[in-house]
Amino acid sequence: MAPRLNEASPDQSLYTTIRRYSTGYDHPDYSCIFVHAGAGYHSTENEQKHLRACRNACQAAMAALKAGGTSTDAVEIAIRVLEDDPVTNCGYGSNLNFDGVVEADASIMDSFGRTGAIGATPQIQNPISLARLILERSSQPMTLKRVPPNFVVGEGAVDYAREQRFPVISNESIVAHSARIRFSKWQKEIEYQEIMKRRGKGMDRSRTTDFPLLGASTRPIQEAGSALPPPTRELPGTPQLLEQKFDLVTDTVGAISIDRYGNMAAGSSSGGIGMKQPGRVGPAALIGVGTFVKDRGERQVGTVVSGTGEHMLHTLISSQAVNRIYDATDELEAMKRVINDDFMGSQGYGKANIWGEPAIGIMSVKAENLTAGKRLISFVFGHNTDSFALASMTSTDTAPKTIMSRVSREPKLAVGGSSRLVQMQMKVNPEEKPKKDKTSKRLGRHDKKYHVSQAFKSEKKAPLVSGLEGLHLDNRDGESSEPSSSDSNKTDCGGCPIEFSDEEAKV
Amino acid sequence: MAPRLNEASPDQSLYTTIRRYSTGYDHPDYSCIFVHAGAGYHSTENEQKHLRACRNACQAAMAALKAGGTSTDAVEIAIRVLEDDPVTNCGYGSNLNFDGVVEADASIMDSFGRTGAIGATPQIQNPISLARLILERSSQPMTLKRVPPNFVVGEGAVDYAREQRFPVISNESIVAHSARIRFSKWQKEIEYQEIMKRRGKGMDRSRTTDFPLLGASTRPIQEAGSALPPPTRELPGTPQLLEQKFDLVTDTVGAISIDRYGNMAAGSSSGGIGMKQPGRVGPAALIGVGTFVKDRGERQVGTVVSGTGEHMLHTLISSQAVNRIYDATDELEAMKRVINDDFMGSQGYGKANIWGEPAIGIMSVKAENLTAGKRLISFVFGHNTDSFALASMTSTDTAPKTIMSRVSREPKLAVGGSSRLVQMQMKVNPEEKPKKDKTSKRLGRHDKKYHVSQAFKSEKKAPLVSGLEGLHLDNRDGESSEPSSSDSNKTDCGGCPIEFSDEEAKV
Repeated sequence: MAPRLNEASPDQSLYTTIRRYSTGYDHPDYSCIFVHAGAGYHSTENEQKHLRACRNACQAAMAALKAGGTSTDAVEIAIRVLEDDPVTNCGYGSNLNFDGVVEADASIMDSFGRTGAIGATPQIQNPISLARLILERSSQPMTLKRVPPNFVVGEGAVDYAREQRFPVISNESIVAHSARIRFSKWQKEIEYQEIMKRRGKGMDRSRTTDFPLLGASTRPIQEAGSALPPPTRELPGTPQLLEQKFDLVTDTVGAISIDRYGNMAAGSSSGGIGMKQPGRVGPAALIGVGTFVKDRGERQVGTVVSGTGEHMLHTLISSQAVNRIYDATDELEAMKRVINDDFMGSQGYGKANIWGEPAIGIMSVKAENLTAGKRLISFVFGHNTDSFALASMTSTDTAPKTIMSRVSREPKLAVGGSSRLVQMQMKVNPEEKPKKDKTSKRLGRHDKKYHVSQAFKSEKKAPLVSGLEGLHLDNRDGESSEPSSSDSNKTDCGGCPIEFSDEEAKV
Repeated sequence: MAPRLNEASPDQSLYTTIRRYSTGYDHPDYSCIFVHAGAGYHSTENEQKHLRACRNACQAAMAALKAGGTSTDAVEIAIRVLEDDPVTNCGYGSNLNFDGVVEADASIMDSFGRTGAIGATPQIQNPISLARLILERSSQPMTLKRVPPNFVVGEGAVDYAREQRFPVISNESIVAHSARIRFSKWQKEIEYQEIMKRRGKGMDRSRTTDFPLLGASTRPIQEAGSALPPPTRELPGTPQLLEQKFDLVTDTVGAISIDRYGNMAAGSSSGGIGMKQPGRVGPAALIGVGTFVKDRGERQVGTVVSGTGEHMLHTLISSQAVNRIYDATDELEAMKRVINDDFMGSQGYGKANIWGEPAIGIMSVKAENLTAGKRLISFVFGHNTDSFALASMTSTDTAPKTIMSRVSREPKLAVGGSSRLVQMQMKVNPEEKPKKDKTSKRLGRHDKKYHVSQAFKSEKKAPLVSGLEGLHLDNRDGESSEPSSSDSNKTDCGGCPIEFSDEEAKV
């Protein structure tokens, strides 16, 4: 098992000795968690199931953070909750591969550049915990002083887990009823294709792409539901069985956290494409593709990604998003460029010519130390899929905020985000004299940028947070996103997806 | 089998329709190949074996290029030659993992952003060819229209190979005698450690790191030889068996090619760390870490990397090198920054705290279209290991050039490179009118930068190359690199590693 909160974490010393808050300010009580449950198509009928999973993940992670847990603890715990929920395509309830086996991808990365990842690994109920264990062990030699790996795959990862006394279970224990049903339908679809092929009818794209295999999806992404192409319309004469609709398209999940020590972590987990090639590794296992964190001390950005994996690898899309947002003064514009230019525009000379239609959802968190002990935390997301399920919770929130961001009009692109200013405390014995307060000038930029809906409150000398609302949602070329969860509040700044309300910020 | 030259390659149309030379100029006869046989420590005794392997790789690849092969063909063929040579740690002769099995990592990427990779894959004699097959198949749906993967690992990759009728052989067929001897010694070392442990003596770092397991290496890198820590000095009382020296430290190999169509490809292949964790995936399998190509039409950069894999993942080092060199006006300085800042400086807040000592060798090729049909091709490398084995061959060379770049003084860092100007031909029916020749001004920069040793020749109207020598080697803080191969010529520009001599360029 990965080190749990109540055990002595081997790297606890790392987190408590290398503290970000070394600028004369401190804030022992501020932490936050952000999660997503995949980009794709979430039916309105099942929307609440996805958002409930996100809420539960936030609450569990926040409990850990408030108990002194690290950002890696929080990311692991949030993703464990999502993995244990059969509604998500990770852990229990993952898609099955072509052989009917769950093969998990997961990765985690922290502020210190430490990473842990597993790919195409069977028999693991909580892939993120095995990835996290690999991260923890990466700073210590293995038995007999062998080099500790940071990426282990397939049966080798199962052996590694056994060697580390990490639970290994049977495949059947991870296969959810819903996953089994999806698999059976895909198998029947394939049998039908084979029959058609033998009759000389099937296997031409015009015919096979028309199967309403994922009928409920107006634009499912391959990563999410199936390795088979998306349906475009129903054909007359489709076999009875195949007319049943799937209500949900599930996908890679991810989480980003900042802990009270000021450190960041990000992680992803996925069961991958349904009916995938056994051994196929997707972006959720790949540092720089599905998960990335960049931290240079005064500024840090984490990104997790969901979408059509085979289009992501050559774009190193999470690292690209991190770099753009790290340097950006306008994070929403940066997110648009990542999706439109870096991802959809591909990187190659001409187009990459990779089979299938690309689609993506990206979630990023950026934290910057400003002057006078102010710390600006910005949350940015973007997607060109039908929907993207997100949630957040900070240590000053009483409940998680959730959003199902939706867009349906072509060309599909939605970006959104929010930001919060955290006022840090003076340290008892500040080693470095705080500089003059130049924050108001600095914030003026954000004020403009984010269509701030509420005026700044006067800064407090008291511990916690002086509220800043910087909220914005830009559904350029798309429909306005409607917060559909009961606990996601809409404000006057244009369909804010996740609100940090000022009242709660004062708690 | 991956598509061979004499077969109709499924993407031949891609290469011939999307031609780089669409600016009014053409150059059907210019192509080049660059290979490395790893960064680490190569004993002077065995230096010629490594360089011979590199020469053979260059010659085979150039034959393919001259026959109209693409850059992916050339990279695949060059690496196949290195894989088939037992002196290298890839293909036949790879290190064995902890269970005595060869598990291969390989990746390939082209100008179009297409990728193919396998990780921790047993029973494959030529891992690069399976990776290349995955690349080729990435633009076509699999059987039953499943999404084609671009990264397959472990036993799943073996199944994939079988399904694609790619040769799968027994593990024993890939295990070279030398690899078996290394494995046996490591096993005995481990047994010795276990005996010591039982006696309460071993397992402390001070003792075990002193074993002269890789005795010939003054600074072996873990990736190269062993998962065990490098020796620092010999202890008295070392068991007799362990006193035998290994003469060579082998490592990841790589190749970069530009074909007559102006397209680039890069690839890597490795057997990984000796005694590695089964299932461990190293950088040679990872796009962005071990292999990367960026191509925006007028400019293209490819990079392949060799070194301590576990330190590379979080730095995405090949992608980082590509980006720096792409933007650089001084490529050698860019290479220094990649090694010193991006790799050795790590990226995390504080240091990444990954076990072991980082070491790296990087090889990059950059091609830029200048005005008036001139094309500048620059070759840059750097390493902070004891040695780095490299070779190159262009279509105008009569024989490959090789170099064993060495550095021994601390702090170890060697960078070097060369550049060549290719004069393109006017097309018969140029669609675009060539602009006025501003090249001389542009070249002035390179003239300065690269300590150019020979004056430019006047441009020729005849097809081929007008020679430019831009050669430089900067062994800052290190010893001067001595070209030690019989066919690597030293020039007057300060220890030039690989010379493009003007006489040969005129051929």
